[in-house]
Amino acid sequence: MQVALVGVTGYSGMVLYQLLKQHPQVDGIHLYGHADAPAVPLKTVATMYQKETAVIRPFDAAAIMHDNAMVFFATSAGITCQLALPFIAAHFPVIDLSGDFRLRDPQQYQHWYQRTPAPVTALAQASYGLADMPSPLTTYIANPGCYATATLLGLAPLVQQQLIEPTSIVVDAKSGLSGAGKRATTASHYVTVNDNVSLYKLNQHQHIPEMMQQLQQWWPTIPAIEFTTTLIPVTRGIMATIYAKAKQPLTTAQVRDAFMTTYHEQPFVQVLPTGMPTIKDVIGSNNCALGVNYNPVTNTVVVVSVIDNLMKGAAGQAIQNFNRYFDFAVTTGLPTLPVFP
Amino acid sequence: MQVALVGVTGYSGMVLYQLLKQHPQVDGIHLYGHADAPAVPLKTVATMYQKETAVIRPFDAAAIMHDNAMVFFATSAGITCQLALPFIAAHFPVIDLSGDFRLRDPQQYQHWYQRTPAPVTALAQASYGLADMPSPLTTYIANPGCYATATLLGLAPLVQQQLIEPTSIVVDAKSGLSGAGKRATTASHYVTVNDNVSLYKLNQHQHIPEMMQQLQQWWPTIPAIEFTTTLIPVTRGIMATIYAKAKQPLTTAQVRDAFMTTYHEQPFVQVLPTGMPTIKDVIGSNNCALGVNYNPVTNTVVVVSVIDNLMKGAAGQAIQNFNRYFDFAVTTGLPTLPVFP
Amino acid sequence: MQVALVGVTGYSGMVLYQLLKQHPQVDGIHLYGHADAPAVPLKTVATMYQKETAVIRPFDAAAIMHDNAMVFFATSAGITCQLALPFIAAHFPVIDLSGDFRLRDPQQYQHWYQRTPAPVTALAQASYGLADMPSPLTTYIANPGCYATATLLGLAPLVQQQLIEPTSIVVDAKSGLSGAGKRATTASHYVTVNDNVSLYKLNQHQHIPEMMQQLQQWWPTIPAIEFTTTLIPVTRGIMATIYAKAKQPLTTAQVRDAFMTTYHEQPFVQVLPTGMPTIKDVIGSNNCALGVNYNPVTNTVVVVSVIDNLMKGAAGQAIQNFNRYFDFAVTTGLPTLPVFP
Amino acid sequence: MQVALVGVTGYSGMVLYQLLKQHPQVDGIHLYGHADAPAVPLKTVATMYQKETAVIRPFDAAAIMHDNAMVFFATSAGITCQLALPFIAAHFPVIDLSGDFRLRDPQQYQHWYQRTPAPVTALAQASYGLADMPSPLTTYIANPGCYATATLLGLAPLVQQQLIEPTSIVVDAKSGLSGAGKRATTASHYVTVNDNVSLYKLNQHQHIPEMMQQLQQWWPTIPAIEFTTTLIPVTRGIMATIYAKAKQPLTTAQVRDAFMTTYHEQPFVQVLPTGMPTIKDVIGSNNCALGVNYNPVTNTVVVVSVIDNLMKGAAGQAIQNFNRYFDFAVTTGLPTLPVFP
Repeated sequence: MQVALVGVTGYSGMVLYQLLKQHPQVDGIHLYGHADAPAVPLKTVATMYQKETAVIRPFDAAAIMHDNAMVFFATSAGITCQLALPFIAAHFPVIDLSGDFRLRDPQQYQHWYQRTPAPVTALAQASYGLADMPSPLTTYIANPGCYATATLLGLAPLVQQQLIEPTSIVVDAKSGLSGAGKRATTASHYVTVNDNVSLYKLNQHQHIPEMMQQLQQWWPTIPAIEFTTTLIPVTRGIMATIYAKAKQPLTTAQVRDAFMTTYHEQPFVQVLPTGMPTIKDVIGSNNCALGVNYNPVTNTVVVVSVIDNLMKGAAGQAIQNFNRYFDFAVTTGLPTLPVFP
Repeated sequence: MQVALVGVTGYSGMVLYQLLKQHPQVDGIHLYGHADAPAVPLKTVATMYQKETAVIRPFDAAAIMHDNAMVFFATSAGITCQLALPFIAAHFPVIDLSGDFRLRDPQQYQHWYQRTPAPVTALAQASYGLADMPSPLTTYIANPGCYATATLLGLAPLVQQQLIEPTSIVVDAKSGLSGAGKRATTASHYVTVNDNVSLYKLNQHQHIPEMMQQLQQWWPTIPAIEFTTTLIPVTRGIMATIYAKAKQPLTTAQVRDAFMTTYHEQPFVQVLPTGMPTIKDVIGSNNCALGVNYNPVTNTVVVVSVIDNLMKGAAGQAIQNFNRYFDFAVTTGLPTLPVFP
Repeated sequence: MQVALVGVTGYSGMVLYQLLKQHPQVDGIHLYGHADAPAVPLKTVATMYQKETAVIRPFDAAAIMHDNAMVFFATSAGITCQLALPFIAAHFPVIDLSGDFRLRDPQQYQHWYQRTPAPVTALAQASYGLADMPSPLTTYIANPGCYATATLLGLAPLVQQQLIEPTSIVVDAKSGLSGAGKRATTASHYVTVNDNVSLYKLNQHQHIPEMMQQLQQWWPTIPAIEFTTTLIPVTRGIMATIYAKAKQPLTTAQVRDAFMTTYHEQPFVQVLPTGMPTIKDVIGSNNCALGVNYNPVTNTVVVVSVIDNLMKGAAGQAIQNFNRYFDFAVTTGLPTLPVFP
Repeated sequence: MQVALVGVTGYSGMVLYQLLKQHPQVDGIHLYGHADAPAVPLKTVATMYQKETAVIRPFDAAAIMHDNAMVFFATSAGITCQLALPFIAAHFPVIDLSGDFRLRDPQQYQHWYQRTPAPVTALAQASYGLADMPSPLTTYIANPGCYATATLLGLAPLVQQQLIEPTSIVVDAKSGLSGAGKRATTASHYVTVNDNVSLYKLNQHQHIPEMMQQLQQWWPTIPAIEFTTTLIPVTRGIMATIYAKAKQPLTTAQVRDAFMTTYHEQPFVQVLPTGMPTIKDVIGSNNCALGVNYNPVTNTVVVVSVIDNLMKGAAGQAIQNFNRYFDFAVTTGLPTLPVFP
């Protein structure tokens, strides 16, 4: 099978290329960049590609559809809402790692992304590919955001089984720097980040609406969540620490059972029998590890959800959706062990 | 003035020694170690002390009281509850950086520290030296814990002015490795910590009871707080991210005003006019920086409190209490600017 | 094919297990630990093994040979010189990641490792498996040390083609913490390592004799090399910066040509056309990247050689030797792209 | 005494401001920025300056000379060669932290800095302020570069006492990111730097000519040095590892004696009696720590020289020169203990 990848030079695109290279069902990868940029050999992009022979060609929707069985967009927000329409019109399969097609409501997109949304009829054809909570896929798969994935997988059992007070959810999410992309700014300067932690986009992170859209689909009663994002001095990894008041007294074992019920068939989700996961338990793998606790003194459930933001939170989940779409075994070409140490 | 320091080899003791060396009111520092260990020159303890001439002598309470105006204990839990009684009996001034005399209730100490507490009559003579919320000091000053300092300074205005729901407090605290001490374990191994974050002592951290003791003194209605501790890959620094439901709708400006009211006279407390502080804003200084936010969508107040755990959270606050005890200007010998970058 | 792995709990063993799991020619992996320790499920060893079903069984040479086609020893120095003799006697294939069989001369082993060497007749049956400078393999393959691999690959063209003054070689090698193993000591404590660099084992590193043994085999005239090791605050990675005086004036292009001549057929060796490699160019891959420069002002050749110490420097090279031994394609099951970012 | 500081917003300027604030001889600090930028309160520049009342005023040479006893320039290369002439004309004391007045030969400056040099008559009035190798100061003090300071202090005894082969010097210098300044680029992005090391400006670093100028003043026979710079993932700190062939066989003790002879009266230079220093032994202090070794197998002297690039390598040495110029005790206002841990 031949596949297309648009946007190989960003972090998600780089990881997607690594994964596609070792995927046993993928025979060839065609790379595409800006429509008006000249073709450029991949090996000139970074030292690590020294021996790669692939070439990044100018974007060309017709050529992509002619030569490939699927296209992956690992592009920034604002690109696929401009480029995706021909693929949608042709019912050509797309996995879109950006946020452009995650929100059903174009006004929400407008509000949170401060950009012009895709047409509502196009948005309606996209499916939200939260791969470890499988629901039917359409030909246009909106791959979830990294924070959204970690948070939704940590909340799903509590919300679907209505174990918590719907107004009480607090998510203190921590993320490494690769989540913020390659742009060089004062905020991403080593001296700013090293030995430091900092909050950003307080109550303004663009993953909030996609989490709310999914949570309210599971349990319409949830009005909102308190969600903060803290930058931590690591390259990869997200930890979402989730707090919620229990609806009625529980035990840690009962919370764990609720999670096991939801996830016992999911090969990439690890509900820990004891203790809390660290991000290195999953970095380099496509796993989500979940630890749970109930504190009877405060009647609070604490869930810790960890993922590799570039794997489960981006490229890994994209491959998982690729496997699901083509009915390959879901773990095909995806590591279930972290790159440790 | 001559002062004594017991326990110079731990991280807090090292920083205390640095601060005492440059304190204009301190003419000499006498160092003491274990009672049954031989005297050892400080310069043999670490390369950085190459040119220091001080000697660590065996602990001797009588000698300490004879030669010094005050003694600092930078010792681990379980030491001063054994060694401090002669000083208390003699009304000799002590600043104790350990947790042994912070809890009024010996049963609480027994429960949280799993050690034999000091006699209740001795505990009664100690004062809790939360230096930026000044209250009268006795001759035995129990210097607060690092997490407790960051959290209490972040909660004080909200609690004292009863702006929040007393059952809704969640504290997601992050700390660097120096907070966990010098012991070499798998948990403190570089490979375990680097590129990682992990929770520890979930609902079991020994600073919880000292926070509750202080919070309930301010507002007895508060039943408990949900408090988690996350280890982050930095050497120094604590960030406490505090969440609480507002009792009634507020604005961010109102929350900030409440903080200004409490802290406008405190030279080391910085209430930010906008944004949230990062830990590097305070590392190396004796400051606590506070950022506040009110989210109307969730009716939640978020406070971010950052300190250097070895300065404001240990040695710096000890010097501040030393200044307070002897009526020196409170900023004497204490940096108000961070060591940045 | 079934293979045995002795010592899965060390860093090299962990990585070897990851690689064997995804190797297309390996159908099953049998794990072995200490002969006198009870069997223990792998999933109890670390959170990341949560879903693994493998069991670590007590070491049993006969069972290993009966059930497997090969055995990997990822054990510390001093183990295989005790355990390997039955395998040698039976001509059963072994890949030994430790240093026990790298030195032909038992007295050198005694001197540098301060341990009792294997018998000289056993040592004589081992081959030194520097996989990217292929030479014939015996059934007992001594996998090279991490520093030795980086240094030898950086020096081979210069030494084999006698381009440099043989007495002028200086190697300033830098390594991450995983190279020093899992033992928790003051030296491996996060606070000691973070924001720091330090030299260790100055002129005493045990990889020096295996480098000299190989270099003198290539060019007996080389009397010794100046070799220092500096610990850098990273988890994985070695950079060897190599300096040598040119025998006669050269150009950078000439030096690069010499390297291309040596390595143009090696799939894992990347001679850069320009610039110098960084360790992240290779981390997670089995590659060695080499940058070269000639400074006419000082008549000095500078070579920078980078590897992932746990891949090319240990487990990756072991798999490469496994592929060579069984005549699989040399890149089978081995990543040629780094895990980046 | 009132002093002026031009360029407080760079890293060196920030540290200089911290040091001047706590200097007992400094009563007031006047800050200056670009001549054509409006005045701006320091507290708006960074959160850490929240409580500072200073204002950064437009540069004005006449006002600076009228209001202050000295001016510090913590500006980038290319600024003082334009701004300094009035101060030189007026014989007004200047400490210049940039490289503009370090090289006597304007052509060297042109070549290495790729900028227009100051007039040769102006250059002639500057003195090179290598403070721990004291030589007479003029009113215009060119503060040495960070790499130059670490390297020259590590080489001085060997060169002045002619213990080494003059053509054999190799310096493998490692530096943290603050040495490269605040500019946000791909090279300074956290993801690029974290877990990585990389060489830069190979044989092209602009501190090379100032080292050669000084070394040849000490011993004209030295033709050149091989000098490489490697970026390490730390914020502060330089380690220069220096290699040279001994002229005739030595012992480590003899090398150490040579260093003691040179430095025994210098309060900031620590010649270690054993072992090698790490950068954390000096970070936050104005010290230079030196470890020495002689390897008889290769007839090589190894010296390890560590400094804090922003203290001894910039602001600390500037204060030391300030103390020397005004005949204050040389340690006035300067920490001799590191900020550890």
